[in-house]
Amino acid sequence: MPRIDVEWLGRDLLGRWSERRLAGRAKAADPKYQRIPNQTMEEHRERVFEQMGHLSDDGAVRVAFPESVGGASDHGGNIAGFEELFLADPSLQIKSGVQYGLFAAAIMHLGTQDHHERLLPGAVDLTVPGAFAMTEKGHGSDVASVGTTATYDVDREEFVVHTPFPGAKKEFLGNAAIHGKAAVVFAQLITQGVNHGVHAFYVPVRNDAGELLDGIESHDDGFKNGLNGIDNGGFTFTQVRIPRNNLLNRYGDVTADGTYSSPIDSPGRRFFTMLGTLVQGRVSLDGSAVVASKAALSIAIRYALQRRQFNASSDTREELLLDYRSHQRRLFTRLAKTYAMSYAHEELLHHFHGVFSGEEDTPENREDLETLAAGLKSLSTWHGLDTLQECREACGGAGYIAENRFGLWYEDLDVYTTFEGDNTVLLQLVGKRLLGDFAKQFKGASAASLAQFAAKEFAGRAAAQVGLHVMRQDLHDFGSPAKASLELRNTKFQQELFSDRVETMVADIASRLRKAPRDDQAKAAAMFNNEQNQLLEAARAWTELQQLNALNRALERMEGETLQIMTYVRDLFALTVIEEHAGWYLENGRLSGQRSKAVTSTIERLLQRLRPHAADLVDAFGYGDEILRSPIATDAEGERQRDASEYYDRLRASGEFPVTEKELRERAKREAKAAEQAEGAESAAV
Amino acid sequence: MPRIDVEWLGRDLLGRWSERRLAGRAKAADPKYQRIPNQTMEEHRERVFEQMGHLSDDGAVRVAFPESVGGASDHGGNIAGFEELFLADPSLQIKSGVQYGLFAAAIMHLGTQDHHERLLPGAVDLTVPGAFAMTEKGHGSDVASVGTTATYDVDREEFVVHTPFPGAKKEFLGNAAIHGKAAVVFAQLITQGVNHGVHAFYVPVRNDAGELLDGIESHDDGFKNGLNGIDNGGFTFTQVRIPRNNLLNRYGDVTADGTYSSPIDSPGRRFFTMLGTLVQGRVSLDGSAVVASKAALSIAIRYALQRRQFNASSDTREELLLDYRSHQRRLFTRLAKTYAMSYAHEELLHHFHGVFSGEEDTPENREDLETLAAGLKSLSTWHGLDTLQECREACGGAGYIAENRFGLWYEDLDVYTTFEGDNTVLLQLVGKRLLGDFAKQFKGASAASLAQFAAKEFAGRAAAQVGLHVMRQDLHDFGSPAKASLELRNTKFQQELFSDRVETMVADIASRLRKAPRDDQAKAAAMFNNEQNQLLEAARAWTELQQLNALNRALERMEGETLQIMTYVRDLFALTVIEEHAGWYLENGRLSGQRSKAVTSTIERLLQRLRPHAADLVDAFGYGDEILRSPIATDAEGERQRDASEYYDRLRASGEFPVTEKELRERAKREAKAAEQAEGAESAAV
Repeated sequence: MPRIDVEWLGRDLLGRWSERRLAGRAKAADPKYQRIPNQTMEEHRERVFEQMGHLSDDGAVRVAFPESVGGASDHGGNIAGFEELFLADPSLQIKSGVQYGLFAAAIMHLGTQDHHERLLPGAVDLTVPGAFAMTEKGHGSDVASVGTTATYDVDREEFVVHTPFPGAKKEFLGNAAIHGKAAVVFAQLITQGVNHGVHAFYVPVRNDAGELLDGIESHDDGFKNGLNGIDNGGFTFTQVRIPRNNLLNRYGDVTADGTYSSPIDSPGRRFFTMLGTLVQGRVSLDGSAVVASKAALSIAIRYALQRRQFNASSDTREELLLDYRSHQRRLFTRLAKTYAMSYAHEELLHHFHGVFSGEEDTPENREDLETLAAGLKSLSTWHGLDTLQECREACGGAGYIAENRFGLWYEDLDVYTTFEGDNTVLLQLVGKRLLGDFAKQFKGASAASLAQFAAKEFAGRAAAQVGLHVMRQDLHDFGSPAKASLELRNTKFQQELFSDRVETMVADIASRLRKAPRDDQAKAAAMFNNEQNQLLEAARAWTELQQLNALNRALERMEGETLQIMTYVRDLFALTVIEEHAGWYLENGRLSGQRSKAVTSTIERLLQRLRPHAADLVDAFGYGDEILRSPIATDAEGERQRDASEYYDRLRASGEFPVTEKELRERAKREAKAAEQAEGAESAAV
Repeated sequence: MPRIDVEWLGRDLLGRWSERRLAGRAKAADPKYQRIPNQTMEEHRERVFEQMGHLSDDGAVRVAFPESVGGASDHGGNIAGFEELFLADPSLQIKSGVQYGLFAAAIMHLGTQDHHERLLPGAVDLTVPGAFAMTEKGHGSDVASVGTTATYDVDREEFVVHTPFPGAKKEFLGNAAIHGKAAVVFAQLITQGVNHGVHAFYVPVRNDAGELLDGIESHDDGFKNGLNGIDNGGFTFTQVRIPRNNLLNRYGDVTADGTYSSPIDSPGRRFFTMLGTLVQGRVSLDGSAVVASKAALSIAIRYALQRRQFNASSDTREELLLDYRSHQRRLFTRLAKTYAMSYAHEELLHHFHGVFSGEEDTPENREDLETLAAGLKSLSTWHGLDTLQECREACGGAGYIAENRFGLWYEDLDVYTTFEGDNTVLLQLVGKRLLGDFAKQFKGASAASLAQFAAKEFAGRAAAQVGLHVMRQDLHDFGSPAKASLELRNTKFQQELFSDRVETMVADIASRLRKAPRDDQAKAAAMFNNEQNQLLEAARAWTELQQLNALNRALERMEGETLQIMTYVRDLFALTVIEEHAGWYLENGRLSGQRSKAVTSTIERLLQRLRPHAADLVDAFGYGDEILRSPIATDAEGERQRDASEYYDRLRASGEFPVTEKELRERAKREAKAAEQAEGAESAAV
């Protein structure tokens, strides 16, 4: 039997920043960073705040910052290490994410030299715990519409930060309820009677004694569904004055006399550039969700390799959970997706590093990075929740005990789907980008002619394919599931199915939107609304294509038996996704009915082929007992099973094993039959 | 515009046991029964134990029991009231479920008159808190294989209850860690050297001072993912002696001299009869999951009717969340399913009452009841989790704050998917029943001929339909989506699609299993394993058919505008399910590609049609603020939106509204253009 080279695969998965990733992982194995279940919110918050001190002492949290504040300007490595902190305690991860990835990062990316010298050291050495005050009660995803104002007072050369109505209160901010001493506040910059849009301001909020400063109120969001180690809350500002130079002025500045200037002329592009500096949050959540999925699958698969339940193939030995085909389907399809997402994330991290290190920092690359981060983060955080829940259920009651980790991870990961960008909103951004790119292909052509072209092109193509494509498939397969299966496992065929789906969906939407009137905002909006669900599907399809491509590129590095088995994983990923969208492929004539059925039967065969490699595939993730800290992932269950077997074997050997009523009946039947036959033989003999 | 008669629909949804249901609901609105978030496990356990006393004083928990212990033998009414307790605190619900629905119910259903007189009063008046000791560390779903033994000692006329190996420890039992004074213990009954299979025994475990009795050890499962108001734990028995008459002997007895007897001859049927008495747990979880879904949708839809986000159709007014088509799809498809599940549950409750009251108690009815309960409970508990998560996300960050309920409900409901029968195992039972019924149709015929018949019948039908059926559809629709849509909304057509799917899947599986050898257990098991995923799908399809039928039967009671709007709900339910299985319908030629596309477009239109009725559809559930206790379901958000609007309106009116940079640029452009034109006009004039 071929075997995976687990060591090689493990190293490959660790990726480019393996050392920083391993250092993060070592923290997850260190009790001082670990969560203690069943603490009250108050105890948990205090513990996490203490742990923040340890993190600061350790220094790894600084690596993304410049050398002037003890860092190494290592953007990718910083994120790689950060992601693994999830397994220590997601509250610690996110609390440190607020401090370094949002508060300090905003000072770095949105501020200029004065801020880097004056404000960054305190943020980075944790003498100034800070909040990132973007979201408001009334505006989450729609940051451009926040209500908080920062109005320049030319006489005193100060900005006046103000909350004009209750919906403009800053809300859901980590560090706001208790620990924050300052905040980066996003507010509408108003000077000389003009609103220049949302900018970031550095606002001190508490003194060293922890008392709120004048004009600042804070509230506590209290108990949450998870992440209760973080003191989320909000601020209300009443005419709070800050010096002019507390405007983080990299993308927009105000001179002493109140004149506004910006290196970016377009207010729209300026706003998106400012927000774009915060993409690292999304990048890191994508990776954290992958970490969570890997850890959950490690536990559930190890348990399923020990746990036995129900006799099926023998009267004396129960089946391993992982030998049930339904259990394989539940876990292996998610394992394959996790591999695809892991490799897609590693590529995202490279991309992110290229842009943020300045090595590959172009507007196009930034835009690509943001699109990719939006798509991948959405799918991986949803996948993480789905995987945690499935693994929990796959471990039954034992999965529900907190020490086995699934539930507490789920509660914490839950909010990853809506913070740092709500997944649905993010996918809509991806979808709009796809529509924009589609339109760009036809730049120069008039809107009408483009639309007509697209409509004809794709309508024709679709119509032709429904017949021809499908007929060709059936001709090729000629009723042979094996032939169909071979084709379905073909790299090119898979890629075509994935990319064709994206292109066709986008073109279809674009062609329907071609009639949207430019001069009737309400009507255009209504037409766009009609396409919203399809656009979200197209964005999902595009992201899945990126995952497939990343997995294929990883396969190019592999060889021999590892390549062979990882190709099964790739096939399982591709066919699982294709099966999920079977309706679309059939409706649009991309798969014949026969071949679509072969998708399912091929998946079933792949599950069997991967069964012997399940342990290796999770071992390659590199999570040992010291990190998983889950009793059911250890040998404990196997030991119990062996104890039980030994007990029954001993009893059987001793002759004291009570016969079952069923056996007794069968024995009686056999004896009666024998007696009858004997009697018959006797009478015959007579 | 037509309107739903909300009052009528509300009464209809309350069902046959409306008074008991309303009484349960009133408890959910009573602070003394409500959960206090952010308590430690220890505090929460104590609170729930106290609440148990209030429940006992109230008396409703007794209604399922005989009048001799203060009850009313009202089985259906008892469950209806019990289900609503979920909204007070699921821990309280399940703790009382353990006491009355399992511990006391086992005494009632598995015991006889002596037990009813001697043991039931203490169980019902709560002087004896009890555990239901069925599950073991090593065996959850496979109850027949539990390791605990109860061996009859003829000399002392006692049973000796014993845990022979660590995997046989009783596990995950409510009341075991702290409060239980007795337990109903499931153990292998051994007498005269014969094992008669699993029976239930009444075993005292703690004295009145709460100290464990001799030979009994208990352990505490500690912190769980949810339901932390319950003291789950386990017992280990070391040669614990109980009197002979503590065997709950309705279905199996042992005389003083050790002779075993049972009114049910077959050990297999006896076992399933004993387990069958516990079906009420599954029935009540089905209803509780429906309650959770209704409450979650009430909150999310009310919030989406107030919350605005992003400008789309106008520059000055943001859109209501519920006007986004994606938001409608997320919430309304789940709303339609919840309606179907609610009516299916009400029918299940009638069925349950008929059997347990003795009015319709036949073996066939019992079997049907168990199958229906297994299918409905599986789908509704999964649906409940899915709905809670979707609603949480649909409310963004606010959905993550504990006071808005979703998260704490999710954590508690989670385990409903695996306790009282693991959903996957339950669906497998449903699937096996479908296979059995299929085989019964051909009783008398040999296995081989049956299989051949089935294979031909269905293969032929499928082949014919792929072509004919689909061609007929396309001919009928003739490229008209409106025609296709009309057909898709036809009751009969929907029912055919649902039932055809079940029949075909079952027949296909049966025909593939026809070659399973009777004399090779391992090979037969392997063949069955190959079909496992398909069988689970068939079970799901059958359950969905039951849901559709129940919803249709409810529609028969409706009239006028209510009927019209509820027919949209039914259509949305049916088409959502059909869309989920579009791949199957297309692969098997039940839908043409055109008509399958019309499924999606019809769903989109139904979402629009239901939009004006969203508030009514959740109002009919009958959950007001006093029960939901969710700030975002009140008018608070609407008030904030109005405040914000007023602020901006006032500012605009005052002339002090700062102009935006964008407006300023556009104004400058217009002025430049006007100046140019003026200049042009001038030069022309010259």
